[in-house]
Amino acid sequence: MNLEAAMRLAIEQSNRVKGATYPNPPVGAVILDSDNDVAGVGATEPPGGPHAEVLALRRAGERAVGGTAVVTLEPCNHHGRTPPCVDALVAAGVSAVAYAVADPNPVAAGGASRLADIGLDVTAGVLADHVAGGPLREWLHKQRTGQPHVTWKFATSVDGRSAAADGSSQWITSEAARADVHRRRAVADAVLVGTGTVFVDDPLLTARLPDGTLAERQPLRVVVGEREISSEARVLNDDSRTMVIRTRDPHEVIKALSDRTDVLLEGGPTLAGAFLRAGVINRILAYIGPILLGGPITAIDDVGVLSIAHAQRWRFDSVESIGPDVLLSLVPN
Amino acid sequence: MNLEAAMRLAIEQSNRVKGATYPNPPVGAVILDSDNDVAGVGATEPPGGPHAEVLALRRAGERAVGGTAVVTLEPCNHHGRTPPCVDALVAAGVSAVAYAVADPNPVAAGGASRLADIGLDVTAGVLADHVAGGPLREWLHKQRTGQPHVTWKFATSVDGRSAAADGSSQWITSEAARADVHRRRAVADAVLVGTGTVFVDDPLLTARLPDGTLAERQPLRVVVGEREISSEARVLNDDSRTMVIRTRDPHEVIKALSDRTDVLLEGGPTLAGAFLRAGVINRILAYIGPILLGGPITAIDDVGVLSIAHAQRWRFDSVESIGPDVLLSLVPN
Repeated sequence: MNLEAAMRLAIEQSNRVKGATYPNPPVGAVILDSDNDVAGVGATEPPGGPHAEVLALRRAGERAVGGTAVVTLEPCNHHGRTPPCVDALVAAGVSAVAYAVADPNPVAAGGASRLADIGLDVTAGVLADHVAGGPLREWLHKQRTGQPHVTWKFATSVDGRSAAADGSSQWITSEAARADVHRRRAVADAVLVGTGTVFVDDPLLTARLPDGTLAERQPLRVVVGEREISSEARVLNDDSRTMVIRTRDPHEVIKALSDRTDVLLEGGPTLAGAFLRAGVINRILAYIGPILLGGPITAIDDVGVLSIAHAQRWRFDSVESIGPDVLLSLVPN
Repeated sequence: MNLEAAMRLAIEQSNRVKGATYPNPPVGAVILDSDNDVAGVGATEPPGGPHAEVLALRRAGERAVGGTAVVTLEPCNHHGRTPPCVDALVAAGVSAVAYAVADPNPVAAGGASRLADIGLDVTAGVLADHVAGGPLREWLHKQRTGQPHVTWKFATSVDGRSAAADGSSQWITSEAARADVHRRRAVADAVLVGTGTVFVDDPLLTARLPDGTLAERQPLRVVVGEREISSEARVLNDDSRTMVIRTRDPHEVIKALSDRTDVLLEGGPTLAGAFLRAGVINRILAYIGPILLGGPITAIDDVGVLSIAHAQRWRFDSVESIGPDVLLSLVPN
């Protein structure tokens, strides 16, 4: 197996634990033996547990000697709750290390140069864009900015409506698309709506499996706005924790969630519009159902744009089919 | 080369002449010799010229003997302006014929069974969906219904707007997407707008190359509506012919264009809404730019839907990236 193929396997490992490792990064690692066959794989365990490299090395055992470690993030060089991965790699006897993304954290960084100094063959940047835009995207944003990464998710008809003229909206997208949203809730560490959505839709905001039961991990549910919500609101039930933030200011909301990494905004036009105007959205996920609705209820109203010259310009970073629907992902241009 | 690969080549040939053959179908043909190597290719010439099979046979010469003809449409069995292709295939000595789609025209049909009766090996349905949804889509619709196929094309932001709040809309999509529209104009046999678009945008509606010069083929330009347009309107210039249809009724428009096969509707919300409500649109092409605009100017207003239960339900038949934009194609569900 070559380095890119091994990195794809490491990315799979990393995606498997996404959401379970914060504030640590969800890292994946693969150990190739000296014949370049897979000897062990691993993914970061929840905080306090072993890092990906250590688990992969443990599974590879003696086969790691003379082999190659392939890791989505530069191996750490510091003693936190666990010893440095660099030491573990050297002790296991690997002769080469390949990684995708450099560690932006000055405390943990320096692993690559230490490995090179010791005499290992070090390759940086293998599938770096895949990792930086994929499993590590939210964590890297948090490292860089100190703020949580905010993804705005919305469901819309092809003509930009979030409901028909009479307000009915179940369903614009398919069961497959809705299951995808639940999977994203399960890996997010907070899911955000405005009081308006609570009044209109009374959502549970939990991550549920297709059979309706609760997923293993539940995000923090967050309700934002100045209006009081009913104590009977379903978002306040016991299925997960819920935080109410009594403000309409997106910057205050972000500040209140500063210990979070991956925030999923599911707000309607008012809340999403405020976040878009404030420039605090880092990714847009548009689930588009193959339907036309027309009428006055658009998925977004005011994004602070008066003229095309000042349009909010983004970039499609992925386009995929989900069942009968299309999912467009946009990131800042 | 196997039959599917040869059919892909025949589809390419067919796409090459799309728009130039109406009312005849744009057919592509490939002749494989007895070793299954390509001996000749051909595509239907404009009305009165040879059909695809005849051109491909001519190019294959003696190599057609014992070979296979691969054609996007069942070879014709009737004597129109040209002799039956079935006779040409038999005379050339091919021993097998594979085609994608049966000829729905009762006068021309029967080619396959006559070939089988003569003792040739006949295979039907090779990549039939690709052909029926691709190069032959408009012609097959015309054969089945007697009416032209209508494609509604629109450009929109991700949030369903066709202009910013101040009315500015240049540009929502990229140069690459606009070049794609010009290519589609060049293969359409009519391009349709309402008087509203003429007043607001004063479009030329010609098919132009990226350097601004006119494409070789120009569609008939059609302006629909009850208002009088200015004699200075650019759509009336000499670059192509223009038809003005003084009605707002989509059914009357379709009737007035009954000699056409492939109509491209580029109307704004009013005209497109009327066509959608009348159920006379056969394909939707949504060019989506990676931008958000918000505001009151939506690409479509009223499609005759009050409740989600009565949404216009379509099906995505292709999703592709065009430069920085996404093109969603929808067909009736």
